Amino acid sequence: MPSPISAAESLIPFLHELADAAGEAILPHFRTGLSVTDKGAATTDGVFDPVTIADRNAETAMRELIARRFPEHGILGEEFGAENADAEWVWVLDPIDGTRAFISGLPLWGVLIGLRHQGVPTLGMVAQPYIGERFYGSAEGAWVERNGERRPIRTRACSGLAEATLSTTMPQLFVGDEQDRYRAVERSVRLTRYGYDCYAYAMVASGFIDCVIESGLKPYDIEPIIPVIRGAGGFVTDWAGQDKTGGGQVLAAGDRRVLDAALEMLGG
Amino acid sequence: MPSPISAAESLIPFLHELADAAGEAILPHFRTGLSVTDKGAATTDGVFDPVTIADRNAETAMRELIARRFPEHGILGEEFGAENADAEWVWVLDPIDGTRAFISGLPLWGVLIGLRHQGVPTLGMVAQPYIGERFYGSAEGAWVERNGERRPIRTRACSGLAEATLSTTMPQLFVGDEQDRYRAVERSVRLTRYGYDCYAYAMVASGFIDCVIESGLKPYDIEPIIPVIRGAGGFVTDWAGQDKTGGGQVLAAGDRRVLDAALEMLGG
Repeated sequence: MPSPISAAESLIPFLHELADAAGEAILPHFRTGLSVTDKGAATTDGVFDPVTIADRNAETAMRELIARRFPEHGILGEEFGAENADAEWVWVLDPIDGTRAFISGLPLWGVLIGLRHQGVPTLGMVAQPYIGERFYGSAEGAWVERNGERRPIRTRACSGLAEATLSTTMPQLFVGDEQDRYRAVERSVRLTRYGYDCYAYAMVASGFIDCVIESGLKPYDIEPIIPVIRGAGGFVTDWAGQDKTGGGQVLAAGDRRVLDAALEMLGG
Repeated sequence: MPSPISAAESLIPFLHELADAAGEAILPHFRTGLSVTDKGAATTDGVFDPVTIADRNAETAMRELIARRFPEHGILGEEFGAENADAEWVWVLDPIDGTRAFISGLPLWGVLIGLRHQGVPTLGMVAQPYIGERFYGSAEGAWVERNGERRPIRTRACSGLAEATLSTTMPQLFVGDEQDRYRAVERSVRLTRYGYDCYAYAMVASGFIDCVIESGLKPYDIEPIIPVIRGAGGFVTDWAGQDKTGGGQVLAAGDRRVLDAALEMLGG
């Protein structure tokens, strides 16, 4: 009987099938004059949180593939909620992470696909269909694939915040004293970049960004990313340094020294 | 004898040749562990402003092509300065706009190539070699090209700031009371996105972002962009509404109503 790790590994081709289906559902709607439903005023304190037909079509396409191939698996999706969420294997889907980037024409949104085994994030992918890039990871490592070429990726060494590149989607998304704690880290780093949603985590895994700090995430925003960062040698915790599997506050770092230094400021 | 406009139009194939050469010079250095020279502490108030070997190689490649084909034309480049800058035709080159994005692995930097006729921006291109996209414009229109497919682009209609998507690279780059004036606009818009350098202007021209506000730009940061925005039906001015050909404060908008409303707040 295969171990859970090798069972997860054997699902990597299926991960690509899901990403193919999502990309096909989404791309016809990218950079068109599509209409946007504003579902979000209530859920994100007035920040515009659109959802598109592309989002729904992509999740539907992925759910259908999973139901057909693995009817016993559970699914937790951004658009259509939880289904059989206590199953041994649960797929975690965010068809378009970065909907604000999407509606602004910016190709840094991503399809997030994760697989949870007995509650633990085991396999994950960040796919960017317009650029044609896929970043994915497991306990065995992490890789980027583009134009049929696959390369392993690794986080980079970084001796501390003074040498670090930091990223967050938008500092205004922090609430209450999160702002001050975040700003303390921002003041300590060498370079800060805003605006990249899931793509910033892919750059941590690839060794070009050292630290990502966010809050208010949902489980499907971060779970699929965890195996990519960890497979590449990096770390994902909450702001107290605890293992991260739910949403909320998230800290990702490529080097433990950056993780520890950021935790000291974020821990509050 | 051809008019200056048709003469400029006839140079579009050469614009592509320059972008080809720049892309070939830059891409081998994108997402590698390249070393970065920090030339910028003095020039940008301590904000990290790296320049890479890719930047220099790309500008050298473009200068060589121009010197060979049009020895009588002038050149103004980010890396190697001005040469014959009083010529009737002057090429304006920024081989990597968005060096901070570049060193962070993010594919939103761009090669900016402009052509000035008797001091007036006449032809311009924003090229993103990693994604393989080129946005370009002239008095005749504006286009995007990818995978050998060319489509015309247009700015979109937007009735005012309340409906607008705004972008700036990083709000911290504004100095003194620019911050307050910028924030007044930001508070009035529907959606704000940070972090996209020249790519944000390409999205104005493409009709997905309505307004970009920046300051502290150099002429080569904005001149090549002007014909793209104007060719697509949009506007580029300084914060006082004056015609923009130098650097400094820049306001770009896709719809005149957004331009006028932003000017009222920025004009100070």
